[in-house]
Amino acid sequence: MPSRPAADDPALGDLSEGAILKAILTRTAPGTYTLLGPGDDAAVVAAPSGSVVATTDTLVHGPDFRLAWSKGYDLGWKAAAVNLADIAAMGARPTALLVALAVPRDLRLSFVERLADGFREACAALAPGCAVVGGDLTVSDVLTIAVTALGDLEGRAAVTRDGARPGDVVAVAGELGHAARGLAVLFGRFRDGDVPIAIDPSKLAAGESGAVSAQLRPSPPIGLGPVAATAGATAMMDISDGLALDARRMAAASEVTIALDRALLGDDPERAIAGGEDHALLATFPDGVLPPGFRIIGEVRDRGEEDLLCDERPVDISGWDPYRDWDSVSG
Amino acid sequence: MPSRPAADDPALGDLSEGAILKAILTRTAPGTYTLLGPGDDAAVVAAPSGSVVATTDTLVHGPDFRLAWSKGYDLGWKAAAVNLADIAAMGARPTALLVALAVPRDLRLSFVERLADGFREACAALAPGCAVVGGDLTVSDVLTIAVTALGDLEGRAAVTRDGARPGDVVAVAGELGHAARGLAVLFGRFRDGDVPIAIDPSKLAAGESGAVSAQLRPSPPIGLGPVAATAGATAMMDISDGLALDARRMAAASEVTIALDRALLGDDPERAIAGGEDHALLATFPDGVLPPGFRIIGEVRDRGEEDLLCDERPVDISGWDPYRDWDSVSG
Repeated sequence: MPSRPAADDPALGDLSEGAILKAILTRTAPGTYTLLGPGDDAAVVAAPSGSVVATTDTLVHGPDFRLAWSKGYDLGWKAAAVNLADIAAMGARPTALLVALAVPRDLRLSFVERLADGFREACAALAPGCAVVGGDLTVSDVLTIAVTALGDLEGRAAVTRDGARPGDVVAVAGELGHAARGLAVLFGRFRDGDVPIAIDPSKLAAGESGAVSAQLRPSPPIGLGPVAATAGATAMMDISDGLALDARRMAAASEVTIALDRALLGDDPERAIAGGEDHALLATFPDGVLPPGFRIIGEVRDRGEEDLLCDERPVDISGWDPYRDWDSVSG
Repeated sequence: MPSRPAADDPALGDLSEGAILKAILTRTAPGTYTLLGPGDDAAVVAAPSGSVVATTDTLVHGPDFRLAWSKGYDLGWKAAAVNLADIAAMGARPTALLVALAVPRDLRLSFVERLADGFREACAALAPGCAVVGGDLTVSDVLTIAVTALGDLEGRAAVTRDGARPGDVVAVAGELGHAARGLAVLFGRFRDGDVPIAIDPSKLAAGESGAVSAQLRPSPPIGLGPVAATAGATAMMDISDGLALDARRMAAASEVTIALDRALLGDDPERAIAGGEDHALLATFPDGVLPPGFRIIGEVRDRGEEDLLCDERPVDISGWDPYRDWDSVSG
């Protein structure tokens, strides 16, 4: 999409909050569950089950994304996707998003317009019926996108992470390791010293291009969350911090050992185990139950010495922790 | 409360995300509506009405608060209160909060512990039954607190801002101008040049002390939102940006003129009209209806040339707009 001339694309600091909100809101439309959309003190969202599933996840410039790599559209899409995945992981259907933006004053109007487009189109593609129903806009030196997602259980019980039972199969739906491969390509190929630089698509091999897309615009299988719940998933979570760390969390919560089979982890099992940000769904099912879209990667056993095994050996990859791993100077 | 020695109070950057979350979560307790609290991919909150009221509002260091003036407890309290007020302004009862924190690595653990205390105690004092049910923690150079509040309408219709009708009375519940007076005291008395400095309570007169508290720890009348709705409020909103700006918004949405009576605006009518951040409830009621806790400040008329009059004259105070009014260097 061609850039607009600066005269048509003012800095946010030169606009009123009302003008910015108007530009965003013309890009959102009511969803299936929207009883009252943006414009009042609060929105009203249908909760047919008599309960609402709710989660919040934030993207911060620096630890979570770089504007040199992520465009507004990508960020809207990703901020939606990572929150929708948390709703799906409970077995719920996403119904609404609330978006709290803290934006630098020198950011252009077109950036937030494309951000709004990304939110809308991620909902349409990943969770039809879900829509942005409200938000907040404030000014900050650090671009911060805090999203809350709501969902409905459609009469089902929530699928928590503590229900895995010995004898269950361990299964995933969605990609493992693609987003991490994409991040490795970005860090390895599109930096000038420590500074991220724009992505040159001509420098990406075919497989790399898909991996970079998986990092910048992940497409977790949101619709399979309710499918898994209906099929009888005993435990479920989304894999945000890597299979090793998240499977360990599930094993600890369920007081079991999860044993993975490396041969079932695809072409790059190391990255499949360690890589985060794909937001695939990790679920356990009673033996013999496997809904379409899920593939078996291991089994649940009685609790042993280890939370997690892969080919019968302990797994020592700990995943991503922003407090330990991020360095605002060099990273 | 005495400061802890640094050895007992590590910087957040030296702790894992899990350790920080654990410290926060031991300070939260399930509320009346909490079906599943923190610890899984998402929370589950009761929505007895079959719908959920949802709003989000963010506090950013700089435009919204200064750490020299606001302690962790104050910030938790205020972040809760401003969001609870938006739920109350729809006529709903708050049921849950989700808290997304982006915190600098050099902040101390005790800060987020006290923040969690502020959230819990604000809920207990202002909206009993409401509780923090989930959150997110990430690292940022700018301390940012994004809160989402949920509420239940208890079978009532939502009270929007577009329902004021000619002949209605205009009423408020809560303080007008106190928070603005407090901010003026802080800006006038507790800065060294442009830099905020710690508040010395011995330098505050009695009335000033209350005004500073109103700025740092506002206590909007949350419980009166449902009371107003039950009594038949035709329109309602919370006054976050000042009576002038917010009454104008209500008048524009309702296509009426709101006429205020200056003599009913208290001791400092200028500040009552212009000052924001009290989060009082502004409501219109059919003539003859006035629930306890509300006081009349004017009347609704057929739409005239002006959205808003005070003593029959136009009001030219426009309120607070962070995009125009905040300056990251000098402010």
